[in-house]
Amino acid sequence: MVSKSQIKLITSLSQKKYRQQHGLFVVEGIKGIQEFLKSDFKLHSLFTVEGFFTDVTDITVVSETELKKISFLKTPQKALALFAIPIFKEKKKQGLQLLVDDLRDPGNLGTLIRLCDWFNIENLICSNHSVDCFNPKVIQATMGSITRVNITYTDLNNYISQQNLPVYGAFMDGVSVYESQLPDNALLILGNEANGISDTIAEKVTHRISIPQFGNANTESLNVAIAGAILVSEFKRG
Amino acid sequence: MVSKSQIKLITSLSQKKYRQQHGLFVVEGIKGIQEFLKSDFKLHSLFTVEGFFTDVTDITVVSETELKKISFLKTPQKALALFAIPIFKEKKKQGLQLLVDDLRDPGNLGTLIRLCDWFNIENLICSNHSVDCFNPKVIQATMGSITRVNITYTDLNNYISQQNLPVYGAFMDGVSVYESQLPDNALLILGNEANGISDTIAEKVTHRISIPQFGNANTESLNVAIAGAILVSEFKRG
Repeated sequence: MVSKSQIKLITSLSQKKYRQQHGLFVVEGIKGIQEFLKSDFKLHSLFTVEGFFTDVTDITVVSETELKKISFLKTPQKALALFAIPIFKEKKKQGLQLLVDDLRDPGNLGTLIRLCDWFNIENLICSNHSVDCFNPKVIQATMGSITRVNITYTDLNNYISQQNLPVYGAFMDGVSVYESQLPDNALLILGNEANGISDTIAEKVTHRISIPQFGNANTESLNVAIAGAILVSEFKRG
Repeated sequence: MVSKSQIKLITSLSQKKYRQQHGLFVVEGIKGIQEFLKSDFKLHSLFTVEGFFTDVTDITVVSETELKKISFLKTPQKALALFAIPIFKEKKKQGLQLLVDDLRDPGNLGTLIRLCDWFNIENLICSNHSVDCFNPKVIQATMGSITRVNITYTDLNNYISQQNLPVYGAFMDGVSVYESQLPDNALLILGNEANGISDTIAEKVTHRISIPQFGNANTESLNVAIAGAILVSEFKRG
């Protein structure tokens, strides 16, 4: 049974200000919730239509109709949990770090977090105006991999200045990434979906790189998550 | 002014059976529509809130409210057009061909079409049960690049048998793509989002390849569009 105040709390968590006020975010689906339960994230409450979670003692069993009221998904996925927003642990400053400059699409951020997890990129640095990583759509797209990536929101300009590392940025007119020497320790910046990397941050870039275009000159740019995947793969393939 | 019968026609085009019955599909947004107008696709009708299309004589000017009634988007984008579903022209059977085995997510198919366009992959072959490429969400995700890629729906099994080409398939347990010899002329198969490549098609694969995982062993697989991007980039980088 879900109370009115619980419904109000949960639906409010679609908005960043309420997530911050309550220090909570939403995870949906059995598989996703299990990933978070295995991690250091702290469970706040768990609502499920059946007893899928034998290790969790404090479960609220709900009806499909109740789940529909609290779910952010068109097709609710059997279970919904609230977890506490963590303080990400101190980052190791080694290897490749991925930076995003005002990334706005939740699906893109979720995909990039999953990419970082796959390629063992421990640090994802987001500009302050990038989409919030605890947005329900981001969480849904990460498939649990957010539990294994350190995410920091900060002023990118200051952050880059403090690193003393080569700074790679993706630009349409950059040097082919296939012909670039790519170091193990570096910053790689991806830009906003519509406007790319902002002018202020572009000034900090020491190596402008691009993915060569093989097709027709009319081709739209690649989606930022796709471009990010190809660039990260190039850094990691050795 | 949009008539009731036009509203009925347009909204019916969210479903494949009505798209096939009428031979029409929907494109939204000025930029997207302009891409189609530049192509060989044949315009059926165009609805816009202002006169953005100076070259088109037969425009229906609509109000924002009317546009909202016919749009598939949460935030309608100033214009909506219907185009005729084309018969894709005969494919050149050279270079890399991308095959998808029961791909279901419209966003993934749209992203892969855009990827094909960027990397000049002229042939995208979809199994008969893959999501329809004229689904409005696919069209939205392709950013017009569907005008430059030949897409065929067919029985993949038969198609592969007829090609007499090396067949590469993405599998979790495949050989590292970074260590594989990748020919210019080949078939590359990507599988379904949940189940990967089906058993029947897997039997046809001559080269099982994978993207090595650098992170934690608990990591979920990569999204199929992301994996596709990295694999295609490996084929094309030379």
